[in-house]
Amino acid sequence: MTRAELIQQIYSKKSFLCVGLDTDPNKIPSFLLEFEDPIFEFNKQIIDATSAYAVAYKPNIAFYESLGSKGWDALEKTIAYIPKDIFTIADAKRGDIGNTSSMYAKAFFEHYDFDSITINPYMGEDSVVPFLAFKDKWAILLALTSNMGSRDFQYHKDKEEYLYEKVVKKSFDWGNEENIMFVTGATHASELASIRNLAPKSFFLVPGVGAQGGDMHEVMKYAANDEIGVLINSARAIIYASKGEDFADAAAKEAKKMRDEMARYF
Amino acid sequence: MTRAELIQQIYSKKSFLCVGLDTDPNKIPSFLLEFEDPIFEFNKQIIDATSAYAVAYKPNIAFYESLGSKGWDALEKTIAYIPKDIFTIADAKRGDIGNTSSMYAKAFFEHYDFDSITINPYMGEDSVVPFLAFKDKWAILLALTSNMGSRDFQYHKDKEEYLYEKVVKKSFDWGNEENIMFVTGATHASELASIRNLAPKSFFLVPGVGAQGGDMHEVMKYAANDEIGVLINSARAIIYASKGEDFADAAAKEAKKMRDEMARYF
Repeated sequence: MTRAELIQQIYSKKSFLCVGLDTDPNKIPSFLLEFEDPIFEFNKQIIDATSAYAVAYKPNIAFYESLGSKGWDALEKTIAYIPKDIFTIADAKRGDIGNTSSMYAKAFFEHYDFDSITINPYMGEDSVVPFLAFKDKWAILLALTSNMGSRDFQYHKDKEEYLYEKVVKKSFDWGNEENIMFVTGATHASELASIRNLAPKSFFLVPGVGAQGGDMHEVMKYAANDEIGVLINSARAIIYASKGEDFADAAAKEAKKMRDEMARYF
Repeated sequence: MTRAELIQQIYSKKSFLCVGLDTDPNKIPSFLLEFEDPIFEFNKQIIDATSAYAVAYKPNIAFYESLGSKGWDALEKTIAYIPKDIFTIADAKRGDIGNTSSMYAKAFFEHYDFDSITINPYMGEDSVVPFLAFKDKWAILLALTSNMGSRDFQYHKDKEEYLYEKVVKKSFDWGNEENIMFVTGATHASELASIRNLAPKSFFLVPGVGAQGGDMHEVMKYAANDEIGVLINSARAIIYASKGEDFADAAAKEAKKMRDEMARYF
């Protein structure tokens, strides 16, 4: 998907909601366990219920990988089921030496046909560049993550800049706002302004609103640009809104609530 | 596997060789493609041929993941086939927020029963600690990797230290030489001495000898400790030593050659 297509979808839905598909067999409604593929059945119903309000879906790859090959099968069916005009993110946080990154890029962009993948930048240029060789596909670099441990290394500072700032600046040697986005946690609202200065036109994928304590208004204040420029992820609050047979309706209601809050920024 | 068991194996084989199972359907001998599971058949024969000389096997997870669920099946059979007294490394370079790292830990330590997994430390404490909760299992943290891109961020330096040094030091808040190792590339031989100072008893997993230009003697000069303290990885030079029907014999010959070179350090 191109940047223009993503922006068009955002404006048409008045939404910048990314729904995280962190699907856990221990957390889905128990009646689904009777289906042949409970994970896919859950995702399918969540997608049907929320696709009017979401512009992106983000399966958290760990949840599928932990189930072995049946998890990967469920992932494959899920990604094929997502409507083609909705942006897809493999939240895999990959990154390795060049030939290995190429393998990961093929896995997620060709085999599974994701639009994008999250990338851990620690290993530098040759770990990122192979993902940029695919037309209309995206690398989403971890810049400043939402978790507690983000303080351990991402704030390492040389004379000029924090490590997370260096990651953002350096990435423009490799790509641009048409093929690179950044993960910027909602829990660091004030730092978002400095990242926005470094990357005025880039999309930010923002986790950490809700359960982790981040606030949408703070995020928009510091991180939005004049094309919106952010995707705000919500997983548990939507997909586990109910554990009963009404889980899909409950998910739709939560997604609509977030979309309605987002619509005020258009 | 415990540290004592690993050291015992190293001394008994006079080897610190890790064989990288970077198994690629496009690179294995073509006659294997007639088998029901060519990847597993290749690995099985490589393991049979090299297990006398190797103390560790390191499947590069990208290569399996890129094949979809049949790749994961081949991985599962491979890991079950490796003799129990040989150390196993999932070269996956994972790392995510706490609950997601827990999922990855379960996937690799419980479902696949690996002894260890390589971890990207960029996301800090809660991305690493979940891997340390498993008895006799190991996290192998990327410190200073062997690739060109290692220069982009790993040398980011504050007043006191490079980022890779900070990773090593900080990790001792979370674990110790019984459950954490470090990836230290053979291509940075002189820096290995400073990492060894920071982590005198820890094992280093060393990629980059051979094809990438690293030299075993340089590595041993700077990185060895009085219990050896290193695992040197070799993949392509061993597993693709021949593309013919003699591939397993050729792999055995290369592995033995490396082991014989290693035996001089005992």
